[in-house]
Amino acid sequence: MIFGIDGYLGWPLALRMAARGHEVAGVDNFATRASVKEVGSASALPILEMKERIKAAKQTTGKEMRFYQGDVTERGFVYDLIRKEKPDAVVHFAEQRSAPYSMIDADHASYTMRNNILSTINLIYAVKELSPNTHILKMGTMGEFGTPKFDIPEAAFVPVSIKGKEDLITTPKWAGSWYHWTKVHDTNNLLFANKIWGLRTTDIMQGPVYGTRTKEITDAKLFTRFDFDEVWGTVVNRYCVEAVLGMPLTPYGKGGQVRGFLSLEDSMEALTLLLENEPPEREYRAVNQFMELLSVKAIAEMVQAEAKRQGLDVAIKHVDNPRVEAEQHYYNPERRILPSLGFHLKIKMKDVVGTMIEDLKPYRGELKQYERVIMPKTKWK
Amino acid sequence: MIFGIDGYLGWPLALRMAARGHEVAGVDNFATRASVKEVGSASALPILEMKERIKAAKQTTGKEMRFYQGDVTERGFVYDLIRKEKPDAVVHFAEQRSAPYSMIDADHASYTMRNNILSTINLIYAVKELSPNTHILKMGTMGEFGTPKFDIPEAAFVPVSIKGKEDLITTPKWAGSWYHWTKVHDTNNLLFANKIWGLRTTDIMQGPVYGTRTKEITDAKLFTRFDFDEVWGTVVNRYCVEAVLGMPLTPYGKGGQVRGFLSLEDSMEALTLLLENEPPEREYRAVNQFMELLSVKAIAEMVQAEAKRQGLDVAIKHVDNPRVEAEQHYYNPERRILPSLGFHLKIKMKDVVGTMIEDLKPYRGELKQYERVIMPKTKWK
Repeated sequence: MIFGIDGYLGWPLALRMAARGHEVAGVDNFATRASVKEVGSASALPILEMKERIKAAKQTTGKEMRFYQGDVTERGFVYDLIRKEKPDAVVHFAEQRSAPYSMIDADHASYTMRNNILSTINLIYAVKELSPNTHILKMGTMGEFGTPKFDIPEAAFVPVSIKGKEDLITTPKWAGSWYHWTKVHDTNNLLFANKIWGLRTTDIMQGPVYGTRTKEITDAKLFTRFDFDEVWGTVVNRYCVEAVLGMPLTPYGKGGQVRGFLSLEDSMEALTLLLENEPPEREYRAVNQFMELLSVKAIAEMVQAEAKRQGLDVAIKHVDNPRVEAEQHYYNPERRILPSLGFHLKIKMKDVVGTMIEDLKPYRGELKQYERVIMPKTKWK
Repeated sequence: MIFGIDGYLGWPLALRMAARGHEVAGVDNFATRASVKEVGSASALPILEMKERIKAAKQTTGKEMRFYQGDVTERGFVYDLIRKEKPDAVVHFAEQRSAPYSMIDADHASYTMRNNILSTINLIYAVKELSPNTHILKMGTMGEFGTPKFDIPEAAFVPVSIKGKEDLITTPKWAGSWYHWTKVHDTNNLLFANKIWGLRTTDIMQGPVYGTRTKEITDAKLFTRFDFDEVWGTVVNRYCVEAVLGMPLTPYGKGGQVRGFLSLEDSMEALTLLLENEPPEREYRAVNQFMELLSVKAIAEMVQAEAKRQGLDVAIKHVDNPRVEAEQHYYNPERRILPSLGFHLKIKMKDVVGTMIEDLKPYRGELKQYERVIMPKTKWK
């Protein structure tokens, strides 16, 4: 069962799971469609309505997905779902997932807190009371860690020394937006639920995902949404649209910010492994999910080079960083769990940026109208 | 301005501030009165309605307090208050403050998350946008730290060594209930707001408070509420009511749980110092506020001895611990800031337990009906 099946990751995961013969049920309140519209933007790739999506998925995968429209902050709705479906696993993607959106103003900060924290609390209690064996897979973010000077552990707890005394503490976090903080709060709440009730949990700290394709997305009818505006678009996806529009690529600040990226296809592969190899009963598994460490400046150069190969001449223009973040920093996160499940980098960013630009080119005309929502306006300070 | 002026700490603080010549405005939605009633209990000491309280306060302090009835999770209400009052300081007591209440079920967990986190977010934004110089004093709890093996720092950040690398991290927390976690989430949110906007903040990690009296509470008309039931009563206050009712005193489990306690009078003294000596602009001050480290077993023996002096023969009966917590542990929290402001222990628990029992005795008849809400029923597991 996928909470947030209509989203950038939710839809490709539904396709992947169905293609692998799993029964798939999904939930969405279409909040992302509405919130992207709210900031004057839209998915760069056209996406079908859910009914049509499910039809198209059935043609490809042979599986009929069950869809429930509703809001997972409503407890009764979540209880009904879990009671009815008794899912092997719930993948919780139904959170407000944009850092800039959470920073717009008090209303957006508050909405993000409320939506993300209460949906997770509902899921915790529904599983605890109605289906205690269900595996909860929560999508967190590598952004929970910030950019510390220590090597980022891939573990919920880490041994430390504090003023000469040793203890085990929850892995230190320092988040960079209200959105990122909700993920930290969710992590803490899930850890506590695991400690007192033993809920089987996978908490994924995922890096930024990019790409338009997965093995199943072979046809425009199966496209997943693709955001590129300053609020909803993550860095690689935003650059590719900038390239297609002939706009300069816009690293924020110096561009030395290093993150752990992965392609949409590799994200699906990793999620599949984590779902098909669930943690033992009562276990809390924290996973660092990323493939390549790259700076946002290096990525701009990569997209620029690929655009050039396709005949698009684009500049790189550093813009004032709207965020409060380090632009030069140490960054060394651990990654053991996915490799231990046999997972290795399959797709490098440089091999997929070309396809992304090609996929976007046919929509250049449509995208023109959104030029003004690409440059950063939502400022942290 | 006191958010939660009708509460156990809110009311005595309003009296103290008024008595010291400050202008006092207060806010409450009377949620605690309703929630205590919900679990079948009531304040052991009778408390007046707010209108009457304010009249009685005026007679004693000479000051007329301004009162606003409303819910601080409603942003418009909070904005109106801050715009109108432009307070020097806001003391945020308007949070759901019972650990067992938060653990009753999904509904109470969710309410606690929503109420505590959203009220703090509203306060953050109202201060940032309308009165950026206002000092935010947030009541947290020593319970945010749990019972670590290191000495609990009195600081928002602490230097650590993680696998051979040094860094500064947010002081590690491990909370023991949804309520306690909301305080951790609030701390993180306030720290982030301080980092990006420089809000002047005091974050108080307070130990359990006990007592019936302060310098201003000289008359039953000025009593603050006094909770004793398993959900709302903290340990010392609960023991005193058990003693008055001739019930056994009931430490949870082995009773080796050590906490840092302080009397109501000392809590008022500490809060006064922190308010009258606000942190410099842009500073975040984390304060450990407690006076005596005592185990809940030692406190039972202390209350038993004092009850005996007053002719009440009561047993001590260890009951199954409803919570998930260590019953024997290291506990060594730092305390520098209050002493640096000239604050030292004024009142020892053993000197005040007698007065508490005396204050409660006249209400023995009334209290009889609540015997059944004293023994722990709200279980963590």
